[in-house]
Parts: sequence; C-alpha cells; structure tokens
Amino acid sequence: MTDPRRPAVTEARQPCRVALAGFGTVGQAVARLLRDHAAEVELVAICNRHVARKRALWDGPDICWTESMDDVLAQHPDVFIELVGGRSTARDWIARALDAGVSVVTANKQVIAETGATLLDLAAARACQLRFEAAVAGGVPVITGIRDGLAGDRLTHVSGILNGTCNYILTRMEADGLPFTDAVHEAQSLGFAEADPTDDVDGIDARAKLAILSMVALGATPSPSSIVCRSIAPVAAVDFLYARHLGCTIRQVGWVARHDPDTLVSRVGPALVPLSSALARAQGSENLVIVSGQAGGETTFGGRGAGGGPTAVAVVADVLAIARGSQPGRILRHTSPISASSEFAAPFYVRFTVDDRPGIIAAIASAFARHRVNIDAVLQEPGYPADRRPFVVSIDATSVSAVEQALADMSSLDFHVLPPFAMPVLSSIG
Amino acid sequence: MTDPRRPAVTEARQPCRVALAGFGTVGQAVARLLRDHAAEVELVAICNRHVARKRALWDGPDICWTESMDDVLAQHPDVFIELVGGRSTARDWIARALDAGVSVVTANKQVIAETGATLLDLAAARACQLRFEAAVAGGVPVITGIRDGLAGDRLTHVSGILNGTCNYILTRMEADGLPFTDAVHEAQSLGFAEADPTDDVDGIDARAKLAILSMVALGATPSPSSIVCRSIAPVAAVDFLYARHLGCTIRQVGWVARHDPDTLVSRVGPALVPLSSALARAQGSENLVIVSGQAGGETTFGGRGAGGGPTAVAVVADVLAIARGSQPGRILRHTSPISASSEFAAPFYVRFTVDDRPGIIAAIASAFARHRVNIDAVLQEPGYPADRRPFVVSIDATSVSAVEQALADMSSLDFHVLPPFAMPVLSSIG
Repeated sequence: MTDPRRPAVTEARQPCRVALAGFGTVGQAVARLLRDHAAEVELVAICNRHVARKRALWDGPDICWTESMDDVLAQHPDVFIELVGGRSTARDWIARALDAGVSVVTANKQVIAETGATLLDLAAARACQLRFEAAVAGGVPVITGIRDGLAGDRLTHVSGILNGTCNYILTRMEADGLPFTDAVHEAQSLGFAEADPTDDVDGIDARAKLAILSMVALGATPSPSSIVCRSIAPVAAVDFLYARHLGCTIRQVGWVARHDPDTLVSRVGPALVPLSSALARAQGSENLVIVSGQAGGETTFGGRGAGGGPTAVAVVADVLAIARGSQPGRILRHTSPISASSEFAAPFYVRFTVDDRPGIIAAIASAFARHRVNIDAVLQEPGYPADRRPFVVSIDATSVSAVEQALADMSSLDFHVLPPFAMPVLSSIG
Repeated sequence: MTDPRRPAVTEARQPCRVALAGFGTVGQAVARLLRDHAAEVELVAICNRHVARKRALWDGPDICWTESMDDVLAQHPDVFIELVGGRSTARDWIARALDAGVSVVTANKQVIAETGATLLDLAAARACQLRFEAAVAGGVPVITGIRDGLAGDRLTHVSGILNGTCNYILTRMEADGLPFTDAVHEAQSLGFAEADPTDDVDGIDARAKLAILSMVALGATPSPSSIVCRSIAPVAAVDFLYARHLGCTIRQVGWVARHDPDTLVSRVGPALVPLSSALARAQGSENLVIVSGQAGGETTFGGRGAGGGPTAVAVVADVLAIARGSQPGRILRHTSPISASSEFAAPFYVRFTVDDRPGIIAAIASAFARHRVNIDAVLQEPGYPADRRPFVVSIDATSVSAVEQALADMSSLDFHVLPPFAMPVLSSIG
C-alpha cells in the first residue's frame, strides 16, 4: 500500500486544512461551497483587511480571523486560497505559501500569466501544488480539461473568447445596434464592466488568460506583454452590418498557435467570425475556449466566465482535487523563453470612413497593390452622409504586416475622417 | 513525506505498466499515443484474438502478445485498458483486473452504464481505479470535467447530443433536405453508421451514455432500460421546414434532471431546439454536453464524439491520470436504486400526415381539448398532395403524458396516412 498510485481511501483521511485570503464576493461564495464538503475540507483561517467588518458576514464555526499572512501560515494549512487580487502582495503570499510546502489555489490571472512558470517550479521543488482553474474562463473547467482530459493529445492551437465584458459589449452592439460607448455604459451599469474598462476593452485581461492557456496547452510561456493586443474600442455599429454581409459577426478573440517548437503565433483583438461558428454563438458575458489537437481535433469548453458563483466553483474544484490527492497533469515546458510572434495570414476586413470624393477607391487600391495585397470586394451601404461615409474593403488572405504597412502608407491621405480599421476574418479557427 | 497529498515527484517513479486488450482502430491509436509518454507509461502486453495477424501491425519494442486474460494478469500491469467491446467478456475481464487490484480504463459504455456502480465499488474495495472518459462523447473530456472541474458545484441537469451518427443524419437532412433513409445510407457509406443503425437511431447508444452522465453528475444510476427512448426514424425532411418556422431545428437530445433526491427525469429522442442554441450548432458527428449547476450555471463541452483518434486521446488521458497518481473526483451515490421518470412538461410539435378532408382540424382540436392540451398554432406549408398532406400543430407547454394520451385517442381516426409524430420543443435547455 505504499505505491502512490494506490493511496488509502479518501474517507479515512483527516479533512484537508484550508486557509482563505480575500473574503469578497468570490471568497464568500467559496466559503459557502466548501461547507458541502466538510468531510474532505475544513476552513481554518480567513485573512482579510478590516477583519471586524468581514467577520460579521461569517456564520460558520469559530476559525482564525486575521489580517496577517504569518497568522495564516501558523495555522499549518494544507491549502492556501489566494483571492486578494492585485499583483505584488498576491504573488508574495503565493510564493510564501508554496515555499512553506502549502499548496496554493488562486484565481489571479496576472500573477499566473507573469510568473506562473516560476511558481510552478517552486511548487514542484516543495512537493506541493499550484492550481489556477479560476484564472481562465471562470467556472469553465478548461485548465483541468487541457491538463488532464486532453493530456494524451498533442495540442497545437488554442483560441477563444476570454473576456466576458468585451463579449457583453459586442453582443449588445450586434443585437440592438448600440454604439460602442452606450454598450460600455450599459455593461458598467449592470456590473459587467469596471468604471475604467481599459484592461478589458484593450485586451490586457484576455492576453493574460491567453498566456496561461499557452503555458498549459502548448508548453510555451510567452510574457503577456509580448502578445499583440488590438482594442475593440474602434468597433462601430456599422461594422456588424458589413460583417453580416460577409456571413460573419464580430468578437474579441484571443488565439495562440504553435507551428513548430520555436514559433508561437498569438494575438488578441476584434475579429470577424462566421455566424455559424462556435465563437459567434457565445452571447453576453459567456466565455468559450477551443482547443485543437493532432489526434482529437477541436474540443470546445464554454460557460460563465465571471461572477462569484462560477469562479468559486473553479476554486473549490481545485481545492477538492488537492484534498483528494490528485496530481495535475504535467505541463510540458519549453526549455528556452519563447516570444509570441504577431505575424499571421488571414483574409481581412478594412473599414474606411471618408469625406467622399472621386478617386478614393483608386488611391486605396494603389496603396494595397504596392504591398501586394489583393482586394476581394468593396462594400458600401447606402444612407450615410458624404462627409462621413463608411465603406468596407475585404481582402484575400494575406499577412497582417502587409495589411498594416499598406494602411500606414495610406494614413496621410486627406480623405480619412477616422483611421482605417482592420480586423482579420477568422473562418478557419472555429 | 507520507502524506498522500504530497507524493514523491512523478519523474522519480518507474513507468506505469500498461496492458491493452483489443488492438483494433482505437487500440492501435492508443498504442501510438502512449509512446509520447514513455517516461510515465510502458506498454507491456497486448491481448487480442488472432495474435499472429495483429502482431504484424506492431512496430514497437518486444512485448507480451496473447489471447488470454491469464497471461495479461501474469504481467502484473498497473493499468488494464479494455477495448474489446461487447458486454460479457469485457465485463468479466474488467472485474477480474479490478479484483486483482489492477486499475482499469475502458471505453465500454454499455458495461459502465449497466454495471458501472458495482464495478466502481469493486475498484474502491481493491484500492484501484476504474476510469471511462472514452465511454461518453469520445475525446471530449466531459467525465473529467464533471468529476474534477465541476466538483465544487451542485449539479442539477445534464443534456446533450450524445450520438454522432444521429447528429450526422439530422444535420444532413437539415442542410440538403435529404430524406431520412438517404441520410442513413450516406452515413453508412462514410463509416459514420453501422450496417444496422438501430442502436444509434432508436437511442439505445445515447441512453447508455446518458445513464453514465447521470451517475457521474447527479449521483443517480438509473438502469439504461428505464430511460425512455424515442426513435429519430420518423423525422422527415418536412419537419425541418416547419421547425424553422418556429425558430428551431431538430436534434437527437438526451437529458436527465434531478429535481429532488428521489425524482429523476430522463429521456432520449428527437426534439426541436432553438436555432440560436448550442445544440443547434452541433454539426455532423459532433457531440455536445451541457451541464447545469446551482452555482456555476451552464457549462458546455463539445467536440468529436467518435473515431479512433479522439477516443484514443480519452483513453490515454485516463491512463496518464492513473500513472500520475491522480484520484478521480468522488461520485456521490444515491443510497437506493432510482428509476428515471419519463414525465416532463414542455411545448410540443406534432406533425400530422393526412388524407385531407373537411373536419380534420376540428377532430384533432376536440381530442386535444379533452386532454386539456392547449393548441398554440396550426402550420401548413403549401405544395403537398391532398391525399398525403403534412401539417403541424404546435402546443403550449404541457405534460408529455397528456400529449401522448391525446394522440392515442386520435389514432383510430381514419384520415391518418402516417401516425402523428410528436417532439418536445426544448427552448429551456440550451
């Protein structure tokens, strides 16, 4: 019975001692869900600022309430749950726990995206675990799905809708033709967006999750800042109209692909996706992750990407896995640091907004031709004023750098009312 | 270091010894994929009839080839992979392996659906594992997703497209208006359907998978035969036309819901699903499973439900999990046997095919009224001959038994050219 593959039956163990830092919405939901598993886990400490006020929200048995990480570790927990958010304190506390041989469960995507590989090494050296299911796609068990469920496959490609705020904004624009700013305000009033939505809208949030997925699925850990982001802020209601002419709608999509051991291609930004695709079907604040493997083909994971309930479910699943003695699937690690390339080929959608006059199409077509970019079609909806007229050029598959250079070339032309806005058309990834 | 939560680092272990029974398409794919993990697993025996012929397909290192389960166990494997299919031999071999303390990985849905609970008890008593990811939805890691990834939630409801053959047939009818028999023949010629497709078409295959999902997600193990099945064979091309008028398409859907500890509702059969739903988006031989939890809401798992590659990925993931010492999430078990009820309420679609004459609507409406079934609308497409005219009655939400009793009442009316064909409209489940 000493073979670790055949441990003693779970029920015979003492409950796993759990300490929780961060008693906000998610932390409180975690504490509630843990009570369903009292035979396996016991909450022994809660760490939060303003203990007196927070303690009033607690109706469970007597436990250690503290504002200090020293007190937490003095309780000798088996698992430390980090839900304090932010970067430096969270990272320090995670590292302190792991260094003390205490397994860690966290929802902190920025810390894992930036220093996850180092922290995983520390966990391995101390024979404890670091789990972070809640850091990507909330309650959707995509990390477990990749590390364990798809462990037998050779994975090549991960794409998805990783930010529920952007998806809420874009699907509201799609459904009711709202302008971007109105959709943002609506998302804020409903609690789906922060007062400052920059991190969501510009892709900073999504690229952290993408970096984590890259580490877990592809064994390549690009620094988040090496992943090119394009904002969804330029997306206008008229883009949905034109997209529909092309059989598409618009989503914020993140993707990362590993074509060979040394080439990682990655990007986060608005893209046209076919109306019939899984990505198009994601509505409201839903998340969706598509994982491609050589043997298994495409596997999709979808669900609620944010909110206290779903995030707490992911945290508790990680805690239970540790309590049950499960070892997570190994993360294959690339030996040298790898940067994400932003070069890829796709068809493109480019919307121009111009002060209309003769010769505009000719000027644009010449600039594209100089960069060997082939125009597929020119689309123009009627009903817009001549001095602010949107029209769209669709472009055959070509490299993003050629498109961007052609657009830079055109930027000095004096008919632009708004900068040209380009999005790739992702027919092939979902 | 004796705490089972902190076992020795994986790399220090001897490779896990694996024996494989069944060297067909899936078995060969499993053997290939296992070679990617030589540090963790070692294939030590292959058991198959006609050893001499099968051995010629093997280009790996020298191992034990045999036709006997005694020889397999004499190799002292850590894991036995059962891919022989069928029922009695497979069940006997699984039980023999578990009884010898050897963990088992199987893709055998009928054995797990019928005797999984007993075999899991045997595994627990012998401190070994029984895993069966490949038995449901091929390569889609839905069992792991439920047992581990959603372990923190209270799950209430599972639904999905569990049979790729039926989905291929229905989506071909949907796309090109093929008659049912033509779509079946096409599926057979492409290898998506058996020469005798009865088990797929009538729902026997899907209900075995649904029984397994019920055990894993809801802790209730109905016998597969207690789950009501309705065949997709009566579905006609015209049904897709009418369904579209109602904003729907048609899928074979299995679902199981646990409303309270003693009430399990379950069914497999053709149903109308909204065009905007995840179920409608599943194309060709794809599988899709939707799991609902009290805290996490709906989580979806989709991908390739059959084929050597995806099935092998699931088998290898289970083997690696055992090799790494992972304990699967506990399956909560209902203490008393539970039967699946077939009673549920939904809006219904009923297609009549009649020899047209005055008074038919009146006769049908009276029969429905006698059973307190409320008609929502009557739809009739032009262009069909009067002596074989299809029309559709849509019905407000009501109990399936009331609809079926009303239809039984009408069966003696002499205008029917085909028996009335009823399908529930599942707006609420996906």
